[in-house]
Amino acid sequence: MAKVLVVLSGCGVSDGTEIHEAVSTLIHLDRHEAQYTMSAPDRPQTRVYDHAKGEVASKANRNVLTESARIARGEIMPLHQANGADFDAVIFPGGFGAALNLCTFASDGANCSVDEDVRRVILEARQAGKVIAFICIAPAIAAAVLGNDYHPKLTIGNDKNTAAGLEALGAVHVDTPTTAICVDEENRIVSTPAYMCATRPSEVYEGIGTLVDKVLAMCG
Amino acid sequence: MAKVLVVLSGCGVSDGTEIHEAVSTLIHLDRHEAQYTMSAPDRPQTRVYDHAKGEVASKANRNVLTESARIARGEIMPLHQANGADFDAVIFPGGFGAALNLCTFASDGANCSVDEDVRRVILEARQAGKVIAFICIAPAIAAAVLGNDYHPKLTIGNDKNTAAGLEALGAVHVDTPTTAICVDEENRIVSTPAYMCATRPSEVYEGIGTLVDKVLAMCG
Repeated sequence: MAKVLVVLSGCGVSDGTEIHEAVSTLIHLDRHEAQYTMSAPDRPQTRVYDHAKGEVASKANRNVLTESARIARGEIMPLHQANGADFDAVIFPGGFGAALNLCTFASDGANCSVDEDVRRVILEARQAGKVIAFICIAPAIAAAVLGNDYHPKLTIGNDKNTAAGLEALGAVHVDTPTTAICVDEENRIVSTPAYMCATRPSEVYEGIGTLVDKVLAMCG
Repeated sequence: MAKVLVVLSGCGVSDGTEIHEAVSTLIHLDRHEAQYTMSAPDRPQTRVYDHAKGEVASKANRNVLTESARIARGEIMPLHQANGADFDAVIFPGGFGAALNLCTFASDGANCSVDEDVRRVILEARQAGKVIAFICIAPAIAAAVLGNDYHPKLTIGNDKNTAAGLEALGAVHVDTPTTAICVDEENRIVSTPAYMCATRPSEVYEGIGTLVDKVLAMCG
């Protein structure tokens, strides 16, 4: 039974984890009887977005771990307690939170910084030869942490500007259809576009299903 | 192509919509090519729960519509703008928000009150002969609105105290296994236990899949 760490970045597409992507990940892991642990950094969100009005909310202050716990139904581990080498795989769902709270790619592009625990967990997993997967915009984190040393093959779909940002960080971008995956066998990294391209939840569910199938197959 | 209204109650199992249940509903509706509209009342949440600490948060004030919009990725209609007769079916996912924000069953049991727009939309749908579906604890709303006039057959799984609360409101409770559904053909109402019984997201996905299959079959 594979042990998988799922790293969340809040709860909501525009300031945290994309909810459909996170839930699709959990359903597919559970369908395979994988044992998963959800985690998130215990730090303030970069912003809080009013998803009904479509604008940044003023005065709202929320915590990434606290909001991520909504998706996790309360069963969540602070990321500073997680070790990437303790799991067979680590999966990062997308949502703007991945590029706001786990790294600063959304605002700083190729000059982005990465949350220290996110960086550490990814390097622990990579150095221990574990499988790492990135969904939607989350491959930006992979590019920021591993780009210059490992030149991972990654996909964020087919958006040229975002792909150029990943390549500026040292990654190799591979255009990939909505429900397909990009596999870097050498670095043991899998990625899928999800809502970078998808317009429907069933597409997200399908693409993430293919990603989880591959991740667990690579865990052996 | 069936038109379905999905009524949310926030975003998070302990103070709003159960997220896995809502996303499972959307994926299954989309898989069938149904056209869905998400909606929620524009009103304050009864409480805000810290899902990481497992306790009610002090001083937090959130709005049901605003938080529901996280699940809806911003595409959401205030419930006061919705008419239950305009849709082929109306679905209520569960989560404690259904019993806190859409009605007060969580605190008041058989003496509960129901949000006026929730009551109106359910009666519009019932009187127009539309299909109505309730997931997890949401059948409490059906019991509160329709119990005395229609005595609907409903399930919340097999919890005796909760079932007794529904029966005190005039409903007929039918014990139902985790991934199965309860169908009231006469009242055109479908329900499923989901996280009232389920311990895993794949069970929730399966039970809600069966519910959505039946709802859309009844839409014809």
